Amino acid sequence: MPIYQAPVTDFRFLINEVLDSSQRGALPSAENADDEIVDAVLTEAAKFCESVLQPINATGDTEGCRFENGEVRTPSGFGQAYEAYCEAGWPGLTSDPEFGGQGLPLYLGLAMAEMVTASNTSWGMYPALSHGAWSLIHRHGSEEQKSLFLPNMISGQWTGTMNLTESHCGTDLGLIRSRAEPDDDGRYRISGAKIWISAGEHDLAENIIHLVLARLPDAPEGTRGISLFIVPKFNVNGDGSLGERNGVQCAGIDHKMGIKGSATCEIIFDNAVGYLVGEPHRGLHYMFTMMNAARLETGIQGLGLASVAYQNAVEFARERLQGRSLDGPKFPNKPADPIIVHPDVRRMLMISRAFIEGARGIGLWTALKLECEHFHPDEAIRTQAGHWVALMTPIIKAWFTDMGFEVTNHGVQVHGGAGYILDTGVEQFVRDARITKIYEGTNGIQALDLVGRKLVAANGETVKSFFDEAEGLLADIGDDESMSEFTAPLSSTLERLKSTTGWVYQHMAKNPLEAGAASTDYLHLFALTAMAWSWTLQARAARQGLDNGAMGESFYNNKLITARFFMQRMLPDTEGLMARIMAGSESMMAMEADDF
Amino acid sequence: MPIYQAPVTDFRFLINEVLDSSQRGALPSAENADDEIVDAVLTEAAKFCESVLQPINATGDTEGCRFENGEVRTPSGFGQAYEAYCEAGWPGLTSDPEFGGQGLPLYLGLAMAEMVTASNTSWGMYPALSHGAWSLIHRHGSEEQKSLFLPNMISGQWTGTMNLTESHCGTDLGLIRSRAEPDDDGRYRISGAKIWISAGEHDLAENIIHLVLARLPDAPEGTRGISLFIVPKFNVNGDGSLGERNGVQCAGIDHKMGIKGSATCEIIFDNAVGYLVGEPHRGLHYMFTMMNAARLETGIQGLGLASVAYQNAVEFARERLQGRSLDGPKFPNKPADPIIVHPDVRRMLMISRAFIEGARGIGLWTALKLECEHFHPDEAIRTQAGHWVALMTPIIKAWFTDMGFEVTNHGVQVHGGAGYILDTGVEQFVRDARITKIYEGTNGIQALDLVGRKLVAANGETVKSFFDEAEGLLADIGDDESMSEFTAPLSSTLERLKSTTGWVYQHMAKNPLEAGAASTDYLHLFALTAMAWSWTLQARAARQGLDNGAMGESFYNNKLITARFFMQRMLPDTEGLMARIMAGSESMMAMEADDF
Repeated sequence: MPIYQAPVTDFRFLINEVLDSSQRGALPSAENADDEIVDAVLTEAAKFCESVLQPINATGDTEGCRFENGEVRTPSGFGQAYEAYCEAGWPGLTSDPEFGGQGLPLYLGLAMAEMVTASNTSWGMYPALSHGAWSLIHRHGSEEQKSLFLPNMISGQWTGTMNLTESHCGTDLGLIRSRAEPDDDGRYRISGAKIWISAGEHDLAENIIHLVLARLPDAPEGTRGISLFIVPKFNVNGDGSLGERNGVQCAGIDHKMGIKGSATCEIIFDNAVGYLVGEPHRGLHYMFTMMNAARLETGIQGLGLASVAYQNAVEFARERLQGRSLDGPKFPNKPADPIIVHPDVRRMLMISRAFIEGARGIGLWTALKLECEHFHPDEAIRTQAGHWVALMTPIIKAWFTDMGFEVTNHGVQVHGGAGYILDTGVEQFVRDARITKIYEGTNGIQALDLVGRKLVAANGETVKSFFDEAEGLLADIGDDESMSEFTAPLSSTLERLKSTTGWVYQHMAKNPLEAGAASTDYLHLFALTAMAWSWTLQARAARQGLDNGAMGESFYNNKLITARFFMQRMLPDTEGLMARIMAGSESMMAMEADDF
Repeated sequence: MPIYQAPVTDFRFLINEVLDSSQRGALPSAENADDEIVDAVLTEAAKFCESVLQPINATGDTEGCRFENGEVRTPSGFGQAYEAYCEAGWPGLTSDPEFGGQGLPLYLGLAMAEMVTASNTSWGMYPALSHGAWSLIHRHGSEEQKSLFLPNMISGQWTGTMNLTESHCGTDLGLIRSRAEPDDDGRYRISGAKIWISAGEHDLAENIIHLVLARLPDAPEGTRGISLFIVPKFNVNGDGSLGERNGVQCAGIDHKMGIKGSATCEIIFDNAVGYLVGEPHRGLHYMFTMMNAARLETGIQGLGLASVAYQNAVEFARERLQGRSLDGPKFPNKPADPIIVHPDVRRMLMISRAFIEGARGIGLWTALKLECEHFHPDEAIRTQAGHWVALMTPIIKAWFTDMGFEVTNHGVQVHGGAGYILDTGVEQFVRDARITKIYEGTNGIQALDLVGRKLVAANGETVKSFFDEAEGLLADIGDDESMSEFTAPLSSTLERLKSTTGWVYQHMAKNPLEAGAASTDYLHLFALTAMAWSWTLQARAARQGLDNGAMGESFYNNKLITARFFMQRMLPDTEGLMARIMAGSESMMAMEADDF
């Protein structure tokens, strides 16, 4: 059976010694989030994930969800775990205190999300979707809608969903056919069929609040004619109590490669009562609030799955005895050495570790920026933080999940044949991770968002937000020689990214296909550069920590080793990426569609 | 439901227009393999795979194998398909006519293997293992053993297996504990427990011939004390008829991530009658005959799965309508363009195609060399061919399966959400492909074989066999300007590989850990260089074909486009690989095992 131990020490290090403390301290959430609280939340979250969620992960995969007479039964233990989660107040961890939340910082929420997904990705889908739906109503709903729906969603008594996809359209939402007719009482009647609705139906909560994209009768064609509606499974009376069943039915669930404990539903809306969110035809804009949060969460799923896969690989590599170290036996009294002595096993472990810790730094930093964007008292900081979040959202979504999938595969590979056997439990991480590259916008769509939108957004200020941060760090460090092994590669990869950015910018102006041809390689190039920044930042904190830090000498030394490994053994891929991009789109686009 | 159309045209092109015709013509098999025969075999093989094997692939995955009272039931249709396969004479396609085989060239066998695995990887395991066992007995068995076992194995009436792994050892066979005691009648009694035995028990054939590694009582410790035994499930009388059941039992089957129709068995030998193959203590040496063939076959599994995944991705990309081409609608009368217009979709398809066709060229070329190694009349050519096969075996095993896994994943990714749904049938290719990176020696072991053994083998002649071939091709082409877009990158990547080879050679002499640290990246660097050679070879044939070829103009033009794509968009990775390798082992090995 797989193990999982939440990386609390690394979270502590990143929050206390790496995150920008002046920005962190200036936020309203700082009041509630002193060191003691941060510590307590991390410790309790770790305990909950390790002892409640992780033990029902493998069984959830084996059992899967069952669909019976329009109802969905989640796997054994999912219900009890959800109850315990709500009782402990976790659903409202970072939510608005006005509606019952605890108002704690988003970076704590992100840490919690990583631990949840690492211990049980399928289970984590239910609260994650719910939180997304909550955020959307909180941001764009009317006061009445907020008071009607939010308190029960924050308490976890009700959950939420996002209903976008229809069978003929997923990526291209302009093709949506679901319809909404105005009612007499100011509400709407929604009809249509949605597919692949995560947490669309289940037995964890008494009500489900669907957020549904549909067209009003007078809607223009395409993406500008889509409106957003709140459609509860059970109608909600004015006092918040449950009314009759609404015209919402689950027509079936999908059988999937992974996340089998997460119900993926076909939902039929038949003249269902709905509440229009905001203005007509602006639904896609509102939905993106939820999508962007969901994209970050999806990236964190990649990270969390990588983290648990890595831990199990390390465990196996320390115990499995096969062969001898190439430079002579390390354990001559055993029949063979543990496989962790073999460089190629270490290669996989170090790639995993360097990804996980570097990415964790980027994720927490971005969660801090997300909070700054909304809550920082200084407008300039809010604006700059908004640029960072916009820029990093597609990178975190796509690169964390590309690497998350790679790292879960390293986890299987380290196990050898045992990794392929279901009972070992590590191939589940691969299957669960596989969807993260697809949903919430495929990674190709993320890359196009980066190149086609973010690169040209806000007159270049969006992209500049990263370069400013990275160059600020380099300026801060200056010519400190003990840091040059990190600053030198960061500096040259920044130059590489800049000149590639210039190339892409110029060429796509002439031929829009160049944007698409460059997009995925460009996103990877950007991500590796961001990783070099994250590792330089962490290496600086580690150097400082070696003098007076709270984490212990070996912790800081291991940070420096891992940073070094990243710079020497992962960052060089940027060279090939740059060359690929600058080869242009011609050979990619030359073949006739019929000739493939 | 997935489709599959065997790539007969590409096989024809590679065999008739790319393979070295002078070597091909000088082989004894050439007599039986004129153009007409080659064509007939390819066409019939394609028909069999498309119409018999492919339709039971998805159902085989869903049903899996069942274990009941010591017996294994294969999925529905597997038995009938095996019967049809034997009736058509496929098991003996490339086998020795002396024992009933057809003696056709190995490259035809390889083409058949690709089609079988592309249409049904699980089913293909049964004949593949059997052929491996047959080859071993043919090469190393006594005359008596050959006449007793080979005819029924060639006819397919009996199948074969290889029994190496025990629960405490897979990679490190020196740790094997199974024992063999001499009997009174010159035979042996085998006892021990083996795990992960593919095709170890099933209902396709009346007898199963196990090849089993075990220790004799006087055996020295480690790999030099292992002997090889033939242990039939049913004893075989002197006249070839079946006797009593031998002491061989299946204790259970494993539940795996994929290849669910292939029975992976735990086999218990309890005082079972066995026949010693060759000399005592030389078992591992003999087994490597089988392992090397199995490694090539495993590489071909990666290729075959890539091929079927690619075909399904293309089909979907031509039909699925989402979004508009970045440079304006291509089908303005449809609600959206097919996704094949999007550069990032093409990126995945072109990577897939460039891998598949380039690798197919390497595979067939190596099959020709394998045949030259054993049957060419000229000793110098036999020796040189042997070096090529030794060198390419780990590269084909590891790189074809690494890329095979990547390409099956591109297949899922092109499908978007539909790719993750079991019914679509393309995620099965990912799960099936996952094992190919592990079994027959993990890809890390292959990389170590390349760097630790092949690099230093035969005074460098092994490695030289590739450089000679590639440089010979460059010299042949000379300064033909129409070919410089291919020869220039081939030439510079050859230099890169040479200088990296020198670096690795020098550094591992000082520190053996450098060999391991470099190994996987070095194998990938070598593989990409071999691909550049394969594509240059194919591009030359395509240029010639444009003048007077049999395949039609667009076939040759598409070869040139794909060759170009490979050179421009895949080969640049060699730069990063070289930099990674030359970073050395230090950061990889620095961390204490307990600190991971």
